Amino acid sequence: MSSSDIFIGETLGTAVLILLGGGVCAAVTLKSSKAQGAGWLAIAFGWGFAVMTAVYMTASLSGAHLNPAVTVAIAIKDSDWSNVPVYLAGQLLGAMIGAALVWVAYYGQFRAHLTDDSIVSVPREEGMVDQHAAPNAGPVLGIFSTGPEIRVPWQNLATEIIGTVVLVLAVLTQGLNDDGKGLGPLGALITAFVVVSIGLSLGGPTGYAINPARDLGPRIVHALLPLPNKGGSDWGYAWVPVVGPLVGAVIGGGIYNIVFA
Amino acid sequence: MSSSDIFIGETLGTAVLILLGGGVCAAVTLKSSKAQGAGWLAIAFGWGFAVMTAVYMTASLSGAHLNPAVTVAIAIKDSDWSNVPVYLAGQLLGAMIGAALVWVAYYGQFRAHLTDDSIVSVPREEGMVDQHAAPNAGPVLGIFSTGPEIRVPWQNLATEIIGTVVLVLAVLTQGLNDDGKGLGPLGALITAFVVVSIGLSLGGPTGYAINPARDLGPRIVHALLPLPNKGGSDWGYAWVPVVGPLVGAVIGGGIYNIVFA
Amino acid sequence: MSSSDIFIGETLGTAVLILLGGGVCAAVTLKSSKAQGAGWLAIAFGWGFAVMTAVYMTASLSGAHLNPAVTVAIAIKDSDWSNVPVYLAGQLLGAMIGAALVWVAYYGQFRAHLTDDSIVSVPREEGMVDQHAAPNAGPVLGIFSTGPEIRVPWQNLATEIIGTVVLVLAVLTQGLNDDGKGLGPLGALITAFVVVSIGLSLGGPTGYAINPARDLGPRIVHALLPLPNKGGSDWGYAWVPVVGPLVGAVIGGGIYNIVFA
Amino acid sequence: MSSSDIFIGETLGTAVLILLGGGVCAAVTLKSSKAQGAGWLAIAFGWGFAVMTAVYMTASLSGAHLNPAVTVAIAIKDSDWSNVPVYLAGQLLGAMIGAALVWVAYYGQFRAHLTDDSIVSVPREEGMVDQHAAPNAGPVLGIFSTGPEIRVPWQNLATEIIGTVVLVLAVLTQGLNDDGKGLGPLGALITAFVVVSIGLSLGGPTGYAINPARDLGPRIVHALLPLPNKGGSDWGYAWVPVVGPLVGAVIGGGIYNIVFA
Repeated sequence: MSSSDIFIGETLGTAVLILLGGGVCAAVTLKSSKAQGAGWLAIAFGWGFAVMTAVYMTASLSGAHLNPAVTVAIAIKDSDWSNVPVYLAGQLLGAMIGAALVWVAYYGQFRAHLTDDSIVSVPREEGMVDQHAAPNAGPVLGIFSTGPEIRVPWQNLATEIIGTVVLVLAVLTQGLNDDGKGLGPLGALITAFVVVSIGLSLGGPTGYAINPARDLGPRIVHALLPLPNKGGSDWGYAWVPVVGPLVGAVIGGGIYNIVFA
Repeated sequence: MSSSDIFIGETLGTAVLILLGGGVCAAVTLKSSKAQGAGWLAIAFGWGFAVMTAVYMTASLSGAHLNPAVTVAIAIKDSDWSNVPVYLAGQLLGAMIGAALVWVAYYGQFRAHLTDDSIVSVPREEGMVDQHAAPNAGPVLGIFSTGPEIRVPWQNLATEIIGTVVLVLAVLTQGLNDDGKGLGPLGALITAFVVVSIGLSLGGPTGYAINPARDLGPRIVHALLPLPNKGGSDWGYAWVPVVGPLVGAVIGGGIYNIVFA
Repeated sequence: MSSSDIFIGETLGTAVLILLGGGVCAAVTLKSSKAQGAGWLAIAFGWGFAVMTAVYMTASLSGAHLNPAVTVAIAIKDSDWSNVPVYLAGQLLGAMIGAALVWVAYYGQFRAHLTDDSIVSVPREEGMVDQHAAPNAGPVLGIFSTGPEIRVPWQNLATEIIGTVVLVLAVLTQGLNDDGKGLGPLGALITAFVVVSIGLSLGGPTGYAINPARDLGPRIVHALLPLPNKGGSDWGYAWVPVVGPLVGAVIGGGIYNIVFA
Repeated sequence: MSSSDIFIGETLGTAVLILLGGGVCAAVTLKSSKAQGAGWLAIAFGWGFAVMTAVYMTASLSGAHLNPAVTVAIAIKDSDWSNVPVYLAGQLLGAMIGAALVWVAYYGQFRAHLTDDSIVSVPREEGMVDQHAAPNAGPVLGIFSTGPEIRVPWQNLATEIIGTVVLVLAVLTQGLNDDGKGLGPLGALITAFVVVSIGLSLGGPTGYAINPARDLGPRIVHALLPLPNKGGSDWGYAWVPVVGPLVGAVIGGGIYNIVFA
């Protein structure tokens, strides 16, 4: 794969991933969305099929990592870090493009939600935003990036690490089952349901970033977008969904090299 | 493929697609349906499996486009527009047949719902129908064709374009993963979950037509059917779910030719 | 396939189908079930995966028809009726065994539900049972066999015919996509989601029998079981879910022979 | 397969299985989890995809039994009991590790839930715990191990036996469909949906252990963990989800040898 194919594939794929993943959060959260209140099962399936769609679409270009944790784990497995910077650059850029597209697709819904005083919104983090000025800012930030229900850094980090180890081991062991044929439609399906599984089972405490680009890119876009009453972007938490998945990638890659290689 | 196979395949396939897709909207919406209130996740899975069933059934006849946006995108990819009129004719006819079959299957439910004054229905569009004369007309139109929660033409159009670009790119890139074998059971499964994904993630604002025939054919049937208190067919919005998906098809086909070809 | 393999395969397969299909209805309906109130999506997925499990398990013995409508449609397609009686006998026996196993698995739940006066139950059919003597009899019958929300014989029949035509065409066209390899894991998966689709989209009016054995066998068991306050078995409706699917099988088989053969 | 590969594969696989399976129960049950209240469909899909993820990940090491009932049934089928002790040891150890990881991932949620007097919790078993001292102990035990809604030992046992027979027959017949290729991505997918099916259809009365290690390992961990107000571990019921699945394995293996072999 050429560097330009990798960059284009990761940018396009991560954009589609975040468009669909952030999209389902917007669909379930925002006022005047037909899917408002569809619940956690909709979010878990939405993110899983977002991964499937994006992986399937771009596998032929870049192998469809779409996640710095996957890129790092594969680099550990293959002892080859040469293309890592290109992957990461594409992933971060794609995540930002995807988040901006969510804003376009739900433009009216964002405005209606953020300017509606009648919504009784439970802020996801005490003290994070000025609740009087922006009663719905917390849930809206959740459309862009993840945040903990209970803010205990070591636990939040542990949850992200555990979820990422599962993801990374599932990705790395694919070649063992598929005779090394790599990602095809079945690989994309399996990956989708692995992500649904992590979301249903390990998403409760922190919202399962398990992907640094998925969290950081949209958080930057949240900080830049001209959303009314949007509140802060919770930068104090931003390191957890970056560091946790990267640590998980190293642990998962290490387990793979010891147990499976 | 002969023209008659294409026409028959697209007519049958689009009829099954709209029977099952419109059917799930009727099932979730109408009074005296066992599935009433089953929610957005049911609708998203219902449409996804409707696509899977129809695609799988008719792939051997016409390639199962079942959507003018898919037909246009494939024509752009292949630079071959010769069969486009036959595809489109079959798709529009099939969509109308499917919508009529939904009416037959839910005949009693339509009547019970539209003549029941006790249902407290939230009309999906202010001013669209005379709420006093037909309190349930808005949701019933939603069984046939799509409509926006917030009527902002540029955003509604943008949402339909974005959703269709995702659909079209997922369809066009299938050949790259399947060694050009075309649609088999795996292709039908992947397509199903791509459609579930678009529904969950991008369906909130407009109800994701992403298919001109899916919206226009049933809207014509809604205008023709002898439903009591059915209200208007919202022709003022009808151009958006036709133009949006066609623009999305052109953009998606263009991206494919630049990035993947 | 030998007659004994067919009989054993159809008996075992239909028993598993009805155990799991009736089971999900019991799970969602009955008091003191952990799944009570899980809703229509659970029922639709439950029946779909019931079909998948049973088909996958017995495909090597009998081809896993598990449904007289499928057997009739395949006989029409192949112009071979020699094994039809063996298939039907196994299917009816299996359906009865499956229904009895549901009763065993949910024994305490049936008793708790039927003897609890505090459950405010909406009887599915006015006048079907004496509501004062047996307030929960209607929903409990629904665990065994189907019944209409609105009792209009021609519509109920039409809905069952339409649903069965879709099922039968999806089954008959499988060979066209799979190079005639018959049912494998992918065929079982596709069939599962076709059944989920029919449930979500066409199940609202009558509860989608689309299978004469699935309805008649358990109805006989309901009539025989010593359930307290069970009410009547609604024999006045019993012909609809037998005749409808058989008519649908003939129509579906005819369409296949005209369009696809 | 070497003994060490079997032991490592089963330990790792069962740990992932219980981490994800117990995780979805924690996610749906505990206060301050984003998935709280997501319902039975989330639990059934969560366990199904937990099985898929764990099976897919470890199939190349140990064949991914991850369940003493599966190990016993395969031993009956193959008349080879030599590796059974290694399988069982790995499964029990893995289940305990997985349960401990659930505790880590949901550390703050466990504490918040168990120390919150305001949660109106319905204890799953009268008299099991002192409701005044530990109002939420019952549901929290349910994150670790199963328990009956109605405590009737013969029925509880029967339900676990029936569920396990279905599971075991579905696993044993896989080789018949896949040309003996064993577990690949499709086998993992089918197994996932078989488990979803058993959960939806037969999980209502007892919570479907259908796996002695899945129930016993986490129950031991529950007894050991320093959870506040955790209440008892319900050892009086602990034999049912061990004996039931083992009896089911023997019956299922016997049916296989008679009908399919």
